[in-house]
Amino acid sequence: MTQRLVVIGGDAAGMSAASQARRLRHPDDLEIVAIERGAWTSYSACGIPYYVGGMVDPLDELVIREPDAFRAKDIQVRMHTEATELDLGRRRVLLDDEQWLDFDLLMIGTGARLLRPDVPGLDAPGVHGVATLADAQRIRTEVLERAPRRAVVLGGGYIGVEMADMLLRRGIQVTVVLADPLPLALLDEDMGERVCAAMSAMGIEVVTCAPVRAVETGEDGRVRRVLTESSMHPADIVVLGLGVRPDAGLAAAAGLPVGDSGGLRVDDRQRCAEGVWAAGDCTEATHRLTGKPIAIALGTHANRQGRVAGTNIGGGDARFAGVLGTAVTVVGETEIGRTGLSLREIEQAGLDADTTTLESTTRAGYFPGAESIVTKLLHERVTGRLLGAQIVGGRGSAKRIDVLATALWNEMTVSDLADVDLSYAPPFSPTLDPVSITARKAARR
Amino acid sequence: MTQRLVVIGGDAAGMSAASQARRLRHPDDLEIVAIERGAWTSYSACGIPYYVGGMVDPLDELVIREPDAFRAKDIQVRMHTEATELDLGRRRVLLDDEQWLDFDLLMIGTGARLLRPDVPGLDAPGVHGVATLADAQRIRTEVLERAPRRAVVLGGGYIGVEMADMLLRRGIQVTVVLADPLPLALLDEDMGERVCAAMSAMGIEVVTCAPVRAVETGEDGRVRRVLTESSMHPADIVVLGLGVRPDAGLAAAAGLPVGDSGGLRVDDRQRCAEGVWAAGDCTEATHRLTGKPIAIALGTHANRQGRVAGTNIGGGDARFAGVLGTAVTVVGETEIGRTGLSLREIEQAGLDADTTTLESTTRAGYFPGAESIVTKLLHERVTGRLLGAQIVGGRGSAKRIDVLATALWNEMTVSDLADVDLSYAPPFSPTLDPVSITARKAARR
Repeated sequence: MTQRLVVIGGDAAGMSAASQARRLRHPDDLEIVAIERGAWTSYSACGIPYYVGGMVDPLDELVIREPDAFRAKDIQVRMHTEATELDLGRRRVLLDDEQWLDFDLLMIGTGARLLRPDVPGLDAPGVHGVATLADAQRIRTEVLERAPRRAVVLGGGYIGVEMADMLLRRGIQVTVVLADPLPLALLDEDMGERVCAAMSAMGIEVVTCAPVRAVETGEDGRVRRVLTESSMHPADIVVLGLGVRPDAGLAAAAGLPVGDSGGLRVDDRQRCAEGVWAAGDCTEATHRLTGKPIAIALGTHANRQGRVAGTNIGGGDARFAGVLGTAVTVVGETEIGRTGLSLREIEQAGLDADTTTLESTTRAGYFPGAESIVTKLLHERVTGRLLGAQIVGGRGSAKRIDVLATALWNEMTVSDLADVDLSYAPPFSPTLDPVSITARKAARR
Repeated sequence: MTQRLVVIGGDAAGMSAASQARRLRHPDDLEIVAIERGAWTSYSACGIPYYVGGMVDPLDELVIREPDAFRAKDIQVRMHTEATELDLGRRRVLLDDEQWLDFDLLMIGTGARLLRPDVPGLDAPGVHGVATLADAQRIRTEVLERAPRRAVVLGGGYIGVEMADMLLRRGIQVTVVLADPLPLALLDEDMGERVCAAMSAMGIEVVTCAPVRAVETGEDGRVRRVLTESSMHPADIVVLGLGVRPDAGLAAAAGLPVGDSGGLRVDDRQRCAEGVWAAGDCTEATHRLTGKPIAIALGTHANRQGRVAGTNIGGGDARFAGVLGTAVTVVGETEIGRTGLSLREIEQAGLDADTTTLESTTRAGYFPGAESIVTKLLHERVTGRLLGAQIVGGRGSAKRIDVLATALWNEMTVSDLADVDLSYAPPFSPTLDPVSITARKAARR
C-alpha cells in the first residue's frame, strides 16, 4: 500500500529530505506532499543581502530549485499553504484552508523565526526582517524606490553585518545598533573588535551596548528614528539583524520534544518520534566538541540533515555526524571565519583553554595582494587538543577556517596541526601557512 | 667546551636549523658557522618567476633574511663560500679557499640541482636555469634589455609553467616544450589536460611528447631555436623548467647514505649520521601514505625539516612527521592544487583506487565571481580511505587542497570527509563546498 510522506516547509531541509526520499522510494510506494507557506521552494536566504545590495539579480537567482522541478520528480508541492495544527495521534496536519491532510510519515522543516526586540514601533512601515525572498523584494524595492538616506540595522549577527555592508554599498548611511558590546557575538572579543574596527573604517557607524528601546515613526506613519537608552538614530529604513531562533511552535504544540536551545530534539537519524523526522533550522544538533545540543541556523546543515532524514525515510540508514559551528562571512573587504568553540563556550563547557593569536599574510609578504590575516586558535591547556579557531583578514582569509574545522573534526592537537603538510606557493601563502605558524606558536606553550 | 656547528647551505633548510639551534644553545656552548656558495641567504626561490614577470620588485623582496640578521644572532655566515669536500672521519669540511673548517656537528642543506636535458647547446648564452637569485637577475635583465620576442620553456614542472605564465605576461610569445604528454606530471592525466587547455587558451603554445634534441645558436653565438625530433621552435631566450633533483653529491662522496630517490637518507629526526644532520631539497622524506622515501623539493618542507634538525642539534627532540606532496600553483587565472598520491603513484604502491571528479563553483553559482572548480578525489576501493586529491579551477580553488591534505593526514575516508562541517556563505562556496560534494559523490560508490 502506498504511504504518504508530508513535508512541512519547502526550503533546504524539507526539500532535501523529499528529494532523497524520492530517490530511494518509487511513487507507487511513497507519495510525497510538500507544503510551503511562502512563494518559493529551496531558496538561498543567505543570498538575500547580496540581492538587496545589487550584486545578485534577478531574485530568481536565489531559487535553487523551482516547485515544478520537484513536481517533475513526482513530489507534490503546495505553495502558499501553511500547516496550522499537527495531530500526531491521528497522523494528520491541518492546513490553513481548514482541510486535514493525512500522513503516514512526516518531515518537519519549518525553519527559523527572526528574533525581534520587544519594543514599540517594530511593525511600522520601513522596518524589515530578513528571512524570506518576500522580505528581500520588499527591502530592495524600498531601497530603489524610496532612496533612503539613512539605515539602521538592529543587531550584529551574520545577516546584520552583511545587510549593513550591502546597504552601504547602495550609498546609504548605515548605523548598526547593538545590545552587545560587539558585532558577531560568536567571535571572541579581540576578534570581534577587529571586525568592529573594519566596519567603522568602511564608514559604518557601530553603536554598541545600546539595546533598542523604540522605533519612532514620523507623520507619514513610516519609521523615522531608532531610540536606545542614550542615543537617537535617524532612519529612513530599519533592518533586523539579530539572528533567528528555531521555529518549532507547531511541532511543540503537538507534543514533540523541544530542547533548551529551542530546537526540536532529534536523534542522529533526524528522527523526533515514530515516523516523524525533522531537520534544519527548526531542530537542534549535537555539537561534536561538547556533545551537547545546539541550535545553529545554517543552510549547509539544513541541506545535510534533510538528506539524512530523507535517506532514513527512504529505508536507508544515515546518521548526521554533528556540527562544529563553522561559519564564514565577509563585510567590505574583511573576511571572517570561525569554527568550534569560542572562549565563552569553552568556559561554559568547563574546559580550560589557552589562546594563541598571530598575524600573518594571506600570500607571501612580497607578493602583490598579500593582506593581513589574523588567526586565533583555542586549545585545551592540558592536552593541547584544538577546541576552536577564528580568522579575520583580507581576501583569501576566511576559507582557511575549513582546514581548522577538519582538524577539529579529527580531534587534532595544535602540535599535530602544526605538522600537517599544507600547500605553499607565493601567490597563496607565506612559506608556512598562517594556520601552520599559529599552530606552531600554540604548540610551543 | 664550545662545540662548533657547521651549516652547509644558507637557504631555508640550513638557516632554519641554524636559527633554531641558536635559540636553544648559547654562543658560549655552540658556535655556528654557515657557509653559502651564493650571494644570498634564506631566499624564496619560489618567488623567482614573479620577479621575472615584474610582479615583485626589487629582488631583495625575495630575501627573507639577510646575512647580517643572522650575524646579529651570533650565527657566522660566510658568503660566496663553497664546501668542496667533506671529511667525516676528521670532522672537517674543505672550503673553496683550500682551508679546512673543523666541526663537531654538521648540518647539510645543499638543496637541489636543476634537471638539465643532455643535449647540445644548453650552455649557450640565452639559456637559463631558474634556481638562484642570480638566475633571476640574469633572466630579468635579459628580458628587459634584449626584449626577446619568443621564449621556449623546456619542461612543465611548477617552475616551468610559472615561468611560461610570467614570460607571457612580459609580452613574449611562449612555447612550452615537453618530453611528457602533459605539463605538471604530478597531476593525473585528466587534470593535467585541464591545465594544458588553460595554458593554450592563454596563448601559450604547448608542444607535448617532444623531447628536446638540441638548442641551436645563431651567428652571434646566442640561442636561436630549439629542436625536437619533429619540430623547430624559434627562441630568443630558453628557460629550463624540468624540475630539480637533490644535490647530495658532497655528502654522498663522504659516504653518507643516499636513497633511490637521489636524496640523502635521514631518520625522522633529520639525522644522517652521528652528529650529522640534513634537511630540505637535498634529502628524502617519508611519504605518509606509502611509508616510502620520496624526494620533493619544497621550501615549506625545507623550513620544517631544518627546524626539526635545529631542535635536535639544540638538544631537544623533534620529529619530522612526513610529507603528503601537497602543492599549489597558478598559471594565468587557473589555480592548481594537489596532495597525496596520484593515480600513477597509487598503482606503483600496489593499491586499488576509485576516482571521483566533480565540477562545481568556487562561490554560490549566482554570486559574482563564481568560477568553475574541478575537484578530483582518489580513494582506496575497499576501505574508502582517501589517497589523494587534485583541484583545478578559477580564483579561490587551489587553497581548498589544504582541507584535503588535513583529511589525508588524519587518514579519513571519503565518507567521513563528506560529513565534515565546512563553512558556507554565498561569497565563498555553494551550499555544500565542492570538497564536500565531491566526497559525498565518492562515498556513494
